[in-house]
Order: sequence, then structure tokens, then C-alpha cells
Amino acid sequence: MDKTRFEAFSDGVFAVAITLLALDLTVAGPGHGSLAHQLGDRWPSFLAYVVSFFTIGIVAVNHHALFRQIARVDRVLVFCNLLLLMFVVAIPFATATMAQYLRDGGFDARLAAALYAGMFVGMSVGFFLVFWWSIRRSLLVVPLDREQARAAMLRFGVGNVVYVVAVALAFVSPIVALLLCAALAIYYVFEQTPTADAVTPT
Amino acid sequence: MDKTRFEAFSDGVFAVAITLLALDLTVAGPGHGSLAHQLGDRWPSFLAYVVSFFTIGIVAVNHHALFRQIARVDRVLVFCNLLLLMFVVAIPFATATMAQYLRDGGFDARLAAALYAGMFVGMSVGFFLVFWWSIRRSLLVVPLDREQARAAMLRFGVGNVVYVVAVALAFVSPIVALLLCAALAIYYVFEQTPTADAVTPT
Amino acid sequence: MDKTRFEAFSDGVFAVAITLLALDLTVAGPGHGSLAHQLGDRWPSFLAYVVSFFTIGIVAVNHHALFRQIARVDRVLVFCNLLLLMFVVAIPFATATMAQYLRDGGFDARLAAALYAGMFVGMSVGFFLVFWWSIRRSLLVVPLDREQARAAMLRFGVGNVVYVVAVALAFVSPIVALLLCAALAIYYVFEQTPTADAVTPT
Amino acid sequence: MDKTRFEAFSDGVFAVAITLLALDLTVAGPGHGSLAHQLGDRWPSFLAYVVSFFTIGIVAVNHHALFRQIARVDRVLVFCNLLLLMFVVAIPFATATMAQYLRDGGFDARLAAALYAGMFVGMSVGFFLVFWWSIRRSLLVVPLDREQARAAMLRFGVGNVVYVVAVALAFVSPIVALLLCAALAIYYVFEQTPTADAVTPT
Repeated sequence: MDKTRFEAFSDGVFAVAITLLALDLTVAGPGHGSLAHQLGDRWPSFLAYVVSFFTIGIVAVNHHALFRQIARVDRVLVFCNLLLLMFVVAIPFATATMAQYLRDGGFDARLAAALYAGMFVGMSVGFFLVFWWSIRRSLLVVPLDREQARAAMLRFGVGNVVYVVAVALAFVSPIVALLLCAALAIYYVFEQTPTADAVTPT
Repeated sequence: MDKTRFEAFSDGVFAVAITLLALDLTVAGPGHGSLAHQLGDRWPSFLAYVVSFFTIGIVAVNHHALFRQIARVDRVLVFCNLLLLMFVVAIPFATATMAQYLRDGGFDARLAAALYAGMFVGMSVGFFLVFWWSIRRSLLVVPLDREQARAAMLRFGVGNVVYVVAVALAFVSPIVALLLCAALAIYYVFEQTPTADAVTPT
Repeated sequence: MDKTRFEAFSDGVFAVAITLLALDLTVAGPGHGSLAHQLGDRWPSFLAYVVSFFTIGIVAVNHHALFRQIARVDRVLVFCNLLLLMFVVAIPFATATMAQYLRDGGFDARLAAALYAGMFVGMSVGFFLVFWWSIRRSLLVVPLDREQARAAMLRFGVGNVVYVVAVALAFVSPIVALLLCAALAIYYVFEQTPTADAVTPT
Repeated sequence: MDKTRFEAFSDGVFAVAITLLALDLTVAGPGHGSLAHQLGDRWPSFLAYVVSFFTIGIVAVNHHALFRQIARVDRVLVFCNLLLLMFVVAIPFATATMAQYLRDGGFDARLAAALYAGMFVGMSVGFFLVFWWSIRRSLLVVPLDREQARAAMLRFGVGNVVYVVAVALAFVSPIVALLLCAALAIYYVFEQTPTADAVTPT
């Protein structure tokens, strides 16, 4: 398995997915009311765009950090990584759908927000599987001992649980679920897959 | 010929093609029935998306594995590789078309599924040609002897034949043809272009 | 932080964003008047395409030049870079919107041009933040002294101010604002993030 | 100037542009006549897709070959390369437009084919400028002497002239112009930017 090219392929997918987010940013054009009004009406699209953009961006950066720790890649890791990417690629769809329904107020808005947060659940589970498998099969450059592995997976895996909470919350308040997703993106700016150093109390 | 940049170009094409698959994931939006209903109606799109995503992903990974074995690249190899990529790039089109027609039941559904499987025939023939030419012209890092080459091509080429079977099967049952394509993606997770070691009985 | 992969990711985003610009180049097709007439009517799209293409292209090139000077990457730099990319990715949207409204003449055309120039403000502020942070945190290969840093930031930051002027100007004349953006792209062909050599009078 | 990253950026643009070609491959879907009929009606799209795909693919490969000969990159070269890429990115638009009008028969079909071939003129002129500037400014790894340079530019530049002929021919017969463009793609499979060896008679 060629680790370098697999990273390049993943980077390509992240880069295209993050850019396709902007395809949902459009206005109907002349003859559909004033431009200011149209732009104002599209605020859910702009908000969703910013949240999704930073989420994918942070995931890409953490993906870089994780793969620096990984010494070699096997078939199962490749498969887990494809699972992660499959959800990343579907994020523009979930983003556009949520933006379409956010102002609806009814059950559809809740379902759309749950779909959106659900995509992040899939993505973070995929990410977690890559991390878990690389620990289990000792694919890391610096292996973690049992204690460190547990601490690392706990600390990193907490995000997965919060994304599941966001799915549940979506059925109460779509906008709060979206803001929770935004908060998680910020959380992952500071919390990446811990290295042996980071999880050892010393 | 610069092998590294040609690989980077191929990776770029794989990454964009795999991401464009998701452009077909859309719902009509508010005013076209409940969102749950719309999502339920689109199950062929979601199923086709997953199958196509993993197929392109596995092909990209096997492409990495094959090019690691290839020492140098000549004009004919470049041309065969472009042929492979031409079918990869057309997969989002075939996927969207099959998803549109899958629930139709009639002849159009069969034709759409045959078109879909046919794209995979083209892709796997392109892949096979790259492999065959690199053996014939001794472009491999570790050359195979005549016996090994035959065994390697037989073992790898069996997928091509099964994709042709999928095309024929599409005219009987589109959904079975789709599932056969899914099975082949899983097959190629475990079966890549064999190296000299792999095909020697010893 | 892996600088190489972060650069590769940024390059991917630049490459996709610059290519998506062309998605706005379309004609309605047969039955909507002569093709020559349709193409003539779309001149704002072609003009906007050229200006946006060269702007993103020059930013990508200057991004390369800046990151050559940067020795290491920290979390804040990553975040500033994502901010820069977020505006780059939105440029195709702003370009298409401006092209739609440019011939309108009224307030909408002015607002669309301001939105367009505003995207460039965001992008150049993001770029400036990356530069400023790398100086402040001594992330550069060859650090600048206080005097040099001030001179470098002044010389590079002048573009930001001119983009703000373009936003204001858009409310007077959209086409002049667009031409000012074009002039700035040409300016940045010659003016990149200065190195220690460039800003020292000697 | 960082040659490696500029190549990576160019590869990204080639990869995205070549993949966006396939966005024009669509059928109207159920309720618009039989699928077989719809696919048959779209033959200009399929033909144009194949020609454009191989043209961009071959240009990407020749771009690799040319940049291997180039030792360093200056601002003017970067600008010429952006010009080349600007036309490459517009090829999907020209391809879709030509495919829409090819069966029209009238003046619009001729204009669309001329636009298509014209895009290739722009691309090949951009390519030629990169080659010419790298010779003129001695940016090549192995410099050519005056005699060699003239021979190399003549041999490579002949394609530019044939593309101009294709533009003229488009006003007589759109399909012949398209076939001439296809023939040129095949020509450039065998003819790349000549090295010092290739142009020396010995």
C-alpha cells in the first residue's frame, strides 16, 4: 500500500468536497425580487456553508495529523478511510438539503438537520475506525500501550458521541443542532488524535 | 515520461470523479411532498452512490498498487491509462442515469443498468490493458516470467469477464446486475494486480 | 502539522475553485435566439471569468511563494488559511452573481459588484492574516526584524485597502470596481509577500 | 517560484477540467421518450466528450514532459501557464455548446464548432508561449542552441496552425472541424515539446 498516494487521493477528495459546498450558493437572478432580499433569504445557506466548510477543513487537517502518526496502511484501513470519505463527499448534499428546509419550521426542517448531523456522525465514526484500527494493528509510528490507547480513543471519540447528541437535538431545534456542529468543529481545532506524548500524564 | 506527475494527475481525476457522484444526491425541496417521502423515493440514488463510490475508491487504491510495481511509463501506457480514466469520469453520468430509471421496471431500467455495468467493463478493460502492456513491455520493477504473467493476468482479468456478465444480467434484472457490481467492488478489495511473489506457487 | 500536505490541500482547493468558475459559462441553447446573440449577451460572464480566473491563479502562485518562506505551521495559521480558502471557494458564486446583474444598471448591479469585491476583501484579509501570524510567531525560515516586518506588511497589505476601495466604488460604478479588481490581479503578479531581502533598503 | 507546487496546481486544474466534461453527459430522464432514443440523440455529446477528454489528457501529459525540461519558473512563465489553463478550463463550456448545436446544421452549428476549435487555439498558443519563453530566457535544464530552438518551435508550433485551420474549417463543416481536432490530439500523442536530442540531426 502506498501511503503517500493514498493521502494525496484523500486530500483531493477533501479539496473537491469542500469546494462543491459553494455550488449551493446561488441566487435566482434578476426578476426574482431585489438582490438584497434574495441574499437575505439565503442566510441558512451561508450559515450552513461556513459550518460545513470549517468542519471539512478541520477534518482534513486532523486527517493529516493522524496519517503522520501512521507508519503503514493495510486493506482494512483503506476501507475505513473510504467510509470516512464517503460521508465527507455527501456533506455538500446534506448541507444543501438542510439549508433548503431550515426556515420551514416543521418536521422537515428537523429531519433535514438530523440528516446533516447524521452525516457528521458517519464521518466521525469513519475517522474513529481509522484511528482504532491503526492502534489495534500497531500501524502507528510510535505505538501506544494499552492504557494510552484507551485514553486516546476516549478523548478523541467524545466528538462522535456529541454528533449523535446533535442528531437527537435536531428533532427539538434544528438551529441548535447546527450550532452544536459548529461548536464541534471548533473543538476539533484544538483536539486532534492524541500522540503517545499527549495522553501520558508523565 | 514523469511517472510521479502522471500518478498525481490520475489521483486528481479519481478524486474529482468520486466526489461528483454526490452531485446526483439532491431532493426537489419544499413543496414537493414531505422530505422523508422524497428521501425514501431516492433510494436507488443512495444505493447507486454507495456502489459507485466504493468501486471508484477501490480502483484508485488498486491503481496505486499497480503503479508501485511499474518502473517506467511509455506513450502507450499513458494512452491506456487515459482510456481507463475516460470511463471512470463517465461513471457519475452512468450512476445518475441508472438511479433515474431503476424504479421504472421496464426496458429502460434494464438498458440503464446495462449502461452502468458497461461503464465498469470499459474501466476494467482499460485497467487490464495498463497491466498487460506493462508486463509485455517489461515496464515492471520486478518482471514476471511467462508462466507468472499468464497466471497474474488470468487472476486479475476474471473481473472483466464478470462485469460483462453483469451487462448481460442487466437485461434480466437491473437490481441483480447492480448487486453483482457491488460484489465485484468487494472482490477487488482483496484481489489486486498480483506481484511476482503472489502468483508463484512455491 | 504537516506543511506539505496542507499545501497540497490548499492547491487542490485553488484548482477546483478556479475550474468551477467555468460552470457559469453556458448558453441557453437552440431555440433561444442566435448563438452569436447569446454569446454577445453573456459578455459580463466572460469578462468576470477572466478577472476571477487570474485573481485566483495569482493568489495560488503567491500562496506558493509565501509558504516557501514559512518553516512550520501551527493551529492558528491553519485556521487563518482556512479563512482565506473559504473566500476563494465562494468566488465562483460571487462571480456568477455579478455577471448576472452587471447589465442591470440599477442598485442590484452595484450590490452584486460590491459582493464580488467583498469576497476579494475577505480573501486578501485571510492572506494577510496568514502572513502577519507567520511573522508574529516567527514561523518564517528567515525571520524579519521589526523594521522589515513593518515594511513588508505595509507593502503587501496595500492591496487589502484597494479591495475595500473597490467595494465602495461598486456603489458608484460596478464596471469600474470590476476593472479595479482586474488591476489588482496584475499588481499582485509583481508584488508578492516580500522576503527579508526585498524589504531591506541595503 | 516553487516549480513543484505550480505543477501540482496545474495537474489539479487539468484533472478537474477533464472530469467536468462529463457533467454535460445527462439524459432528460423518464417521460422524455425511450432511454435508447435519448442516448442516440446525444451522440454529439458523446463524440465531443471523447475528443475533448483525450485532448486535455494529452495536453496534461505533454505539460508534464515540458516541465521536466524546465529548470526554473519565473513570473512571465507563470502568467503564460495561467493563460494556457484559462483555455483548458473553458473547454467543458465549449464542448457542451458545440454538442448542443452540432445537429442544428445552420450557422449556429458552425459558430459553435469554431468556438470549440478556437478554445484549442487559445490553449495551444498558451502552451507555445510557455515553451517559447522557457527557451528565450534559458529556463531549460538542457538549453537549445539557436538552430535547435528554431527547429523545436517549428515542429511543435505546427499544431497551433492546424487548430487555426480547424476554426476556419468549422464554417464549412462543423463535423470535419471536430474530426480535425481529434486528429490533432492523436498527433500530439506522438509529438511533444522536442528536447535537444530530438531536434539535432546528428
